[in-house]
Amino acid sequence: MTPHFPIGFSGNAVHAGIKQTAGKEDVALILSDRPTVGVGVYTQNLVCAAPVTYDRSLTPSEKIRAVVINSGVANACTGDRGDEDCQKMATMVAQACGLDEGQTLVLSTGVIGVHLPMEKIESGIKQVSQSLSSDDDALERTARGMMTTDTVTKKRGRQFELDGVKLTVTGIAKGAAMIGPNMATMLSVVMTDANLSPRDAHQALQDAVSETFNCISVDGHTSTNDTVLLLANGAAGGPVLEGRNLDAFRATLYEVCEDLAQSIPADGEGATHLVTVEVHGCRTRAEAVKIGKTIADSPLVKTAIHGADPNWGRVVSAAGYAGVPFNPHHVSLHINGLLVYERGAPVDFDEAAVSKSMAEERETSLLLILDEGAAAARFWTTDLTAEYVRLNADYTT
Amino acid sequence: MTPHFPIGFSGNAVHAGIKQTAGKEDVALILSDRPTVGVGVYTQNLVCAAPVTYDRSLTPSEKIRAVVINSGVANACTGDRGDEDCQKMATMVAQACGLDEGQTLVLSTGVIGVHLPMEKIESGIKQVSQSLSSDDDALERTARGMMTTDTVTKKRGRQFELDGVKLTVTGIAKGAAMIGPNMATMLSVVMTDANLSPRDAHQALQDAVSETFNCISVDGHTSTNDTVLLLANGAAGGPVLEGRNLDAFRATLYEVCEDLAQSIPADGEGATHLVTVEVHGCRTRAEAVKIGKTIADSPLVKTAIHGADPNWGRVVSAAGYAGVPFNPHHVSLHINGLLVYERGAPVDFDEAAVSKSMAEERETSLLLILDEGAAAARFWTTDLTAEYVRLNADYTT
Repeated sequence: MTPHFPIGFSGNAVHAGIKQTAGKEDVALILSDRPTVGVGVYTQNLVCAAPVTYDRSLTPSEKIRAVVINSGVANACTGDRGDEDCQKMATMVAQACGLDEGQTLVLSTGVIGVHLPMEKIESGIKQVSQSLSSDDDALERTARGMMTTDTVTKKRGRQFELDGVKLTVTGIAKGAAMIGPNMATMLSVVMTDANLSPRDAHQALQDAVSETFNCISVDGHTSTNDTVLLLANGAAGGPVLEGRNLDAFRATLYEVCEDLAQSIPADGEGATHLVTVEVHGCRTRAEAVKIGKTIADSPLVKTAIHGADPNWGRVVSAAGYAGVPFNPHHVSLHINGLLVYERGAPVDFDEAAVSKSMAEERETSLLLILDEGAAAARFWTTDLTAEYVRLNADYTT
Repeated sequence: MTPHFPIGFSGNAVHAGIKQTAGKEDVALILSDRPTVGVGVYTQNLVCAAPVTYDRSLTPSEKIRAVVINSGVANACTGDRGDEDCQKMATMVAQACGLDEGQTLVLSTGVIGVHLPMEKIESGIKQVSQSLSSDDDALERTARGMMTTDTVTKKRGRQFELDGVKLTVTGIAKGAAMIGPNMATMLSVVMTDANLSPRDAHQALQDAVSETFNCISVDGHTSTNDTVLLLANGAAGGPVLEGRNLDAFRATLYEVCEDLAQSIPADGEGATHLVTVEVHGCRTRAEAVKIGKTIADSPLVKTAIHGADPNWGRVVSAAGYAGVPFNPHHVSLHINGLLVYERGAPVDFDEAAVSKSMAEERETSLLLILDEGAAAARFWTTDLTAEYVRLNADYTT
């Protein structure tokens, strides 16, 4: 479905001059007409940006009203002044929208080590706060306002009915690796008009993120700014979700997060393939994720896929150095559905056919099967191309 | 100095037809005229090649006489037949040179998942065993016999005197990342005519490798075949080294291993820079290595260096996700000797000058200083170039 703002949410974005290109939206604002339950999941990088510290201190909350987002400058590695600037952004939104302190969350993405141009931010916030709308064009512009090197906006939404009440879950996201001096960062805001307790909202977001946004990589470089926020304003009506209704919400949230998460490597810088790495037969999900991430981050696996080379040796050997104990004689691998390695030994397979399918399809599937247990995980990544190198190297300060 | 075979060692290599290109050496043999103390340090990859399993079972030993090396086929992921083939290689050498079983170590590098062409191996071993020599040309050919995608041979040697006895430590190595379907692997054989106990030899090799060969990466992909062997035949005369004499040997071994280890990223596939990452001020050396490796493996750091971009944000943020706790407000960074980030905040520096030095010098130095303790480590890597991607992707099975 075309994603829409859930009931009670509006948004928009304007060009405030932080990005060089005229007309490119760089200050976005999301507002709920009533307080929302607001929860967040944040980067695990020790070196984290000012807005991450700020939002962490405010969430979980039951009174969030707004999220302000700027692109172009990440406000990371900016010391005390960065913290003050972040606080000021929130205060500007509070003044422009008539909110209390502590009702505004802040997201920033862009160049690191550079201070925010606060006059531009201020004029941007004033402008955008006067043009908020809940129509689909405004949602599209809001999503554009968080883009850096993304080539497409990332919006996904689902609707479902519980006891006669129609609920909406809609998310926007940005991310396509990093470029130039920028930390391109992964940011996402998921909005819903469902009625959730802060505790359930936080647990639902954590669980969904751990299997979606935390299972993607483009280049394995964890940003200083990564943030996923969930805002639930209950505007659809009905009681606080619990039991099977909460489960239904969680399932929908998972789907929206999975759609958004996949859209990031699908738009990976210079990428020609979206790669799904599935790892089965592990003792624990954490071990399956660790193996999946190690395969997904191997430049040799990524270049082989770019070259349409069904090079199972690179995949199997990457699993071998993931730091997870397993019996290598019980490992099997499928590429694009075809068995290429079985219980520790090569299999005669039609290399030309697998190579052809890799060359022709944008999506590549790697399925690694161990024999250690019943846990599994999926991980998404891109291939590695000369264009990625060009995008990230051909910049001179 | 030009490296020479230590006393009592000889070697050579021939083209046996495993590599496609006519004349390219692919079977090499090293022989000591008397039993050597032979010790090894091996890949930590769970998926390890047949020769790794074989050599592990024989070392440490006091009776090694020979090392046979083939390039072109790695004998990895080859099941039971791979183990049998490896054993046969050793037996062929024993027959050709009149050795006992268990006196020959085996190294293989090249394509994985392919069985060794045993007839070619056999004829190669027969040929090479009849052309052994201890001259420098033979050492050069021996080094060539282990090359895969290397563009230069890697030989380093040092001589020193202890109590009037001249001792030689000479090593050869190969490795330049991976290419096509090959596991290009890091292999090294270090020979010495010093007199060592197996226990001291093993400890000396482990210590040297942990600070040299284990502190390099080209693409972070741990090979199935990585092996470093040390052979000490005592032919220079004198008693078993101990005390300060042992220390002097250890220092020389460390230097030879460092020279050899650096030569690998210096010859990295497609690389235009050799990057030294120094991490100071850590609680433990292991933590310093972990941070150094995370920085060295970041594609964003590597592409920035390729583009001569003094992008300190990428370096600092890579340290932040290394999984080592530290206070990010006490972090400083120097690039090519210039302070660019000081105690958690950007520093005004001459970006054009740093960029120029990065563009003009083949060697780039990153020095990250934490404030957690007194431990430090060095790590060496390459930049990441479009040529690396081309080498590793533009192969179709």
